[in-house]
Amino acid sequence: MSTEDIGFKAALHEARQGSHEGGVPIGAALVSAEGKLLGQGHNMRIQNKSATLHAEISCLENAGRLPASSYRGATMYTTLSPCDMCTGACVMYKVKRVVIGENKTFVGGEEYLKSKGIEVVVLQNDECQDLMKKFIKEKPEDWYEDIGEEDK
Amino acid sequence: MSTEDIGFKAALHEARQGSHEGGVPIGAALVSAEGKLLGQGHNMRIQNKSATLHAEISCLENAGRLPASSYRGATMYTTLSPCDMCTGACVMYKVKRVVIGENKTFVGGEEYLKSKGIEVVVLQNDECQDLMKKFIKEKPEDWYEDIGEEDK
Repeated sequence: MSTEDIGFKAALHEARQGSHEGGVPIGAALVSAEGKLLGQGHNMRIQNKSATLHAEISCLENAGRLPASSYRGATMYTTLSPCDMCTGACVMYKVKRVVIGENKTFVGGEEYLKSKGIEVVVLQNDECQDLMKKFIKEKPEDWYEDIGEEDK
Repeated sequence: MSTEDIGFKAALHEARQGSHEGGVPIGAALVSAEGKLLGQGHNMRIQNKSATLHAEISCLENAGRLPASSYRGATMYTTLSPCDMCTGACVMYKVKRVVIGENKTFVGGEEYLKSKGIEVVVLQNDECQDLMKKFIKEKPEDWYEDIGEEDK
């Protein structure tokens, strides 16, 4: 299995888990330059009443305290284009690459990542998008709250 | 007491608390457009072995789930210039203003905040700077880890 598969599969697994829990179905996984899975997590807004545990933040938190060198050359996999907070977290820890499941539901800080020299790959995976479509149809107010937007 | 005082005093109180706990001494407080203290918190890297609970993230987390409207017109007070992650959190939630205790120790995403129409005020408060000077002298490796930098 390639490193790409390990990270994306872990992120998608987390998104499904979030969906099973009735939460915002977005997952993330961090894979080191050496191909080691450093951490994974999913959005915990509904489950933990959390304003900050987006998938990428949850993943970084679950990975725990790491020296700066651990993030060098690493890839952040996320099932949805990262918001400004999660984009900033990737920039701050200087990951090498961000692999995004889909960006049809929402486009976050992709251009900012690129401006900082971080490689961005968008997979346009149908399952990632379907999970979000279903969630937004059922709980639009929770989705808009999650990205700091007024309900539409 | 002005709103400015309430927010900055709460942030400074949090930074002192972090220092007492042996943690990275940075605090933050979020004050609504109406002058209500919505939340406050301090950096928890050392205390919680956390890779993401910077002061501003801790503050937003402690404020809990809020509708987008709660952040409109709000001010984030922080004792140190915000890193890219915390900058992104302020941009995502669209706060109106970020008041910074000092930016001599570290300059974060101030220009990015301004580019998004967020007002930035820097107080250059001596106590905020002294707390950081003392901490970095004692635990340089923890400070550099906190901002994703190699130890210098």
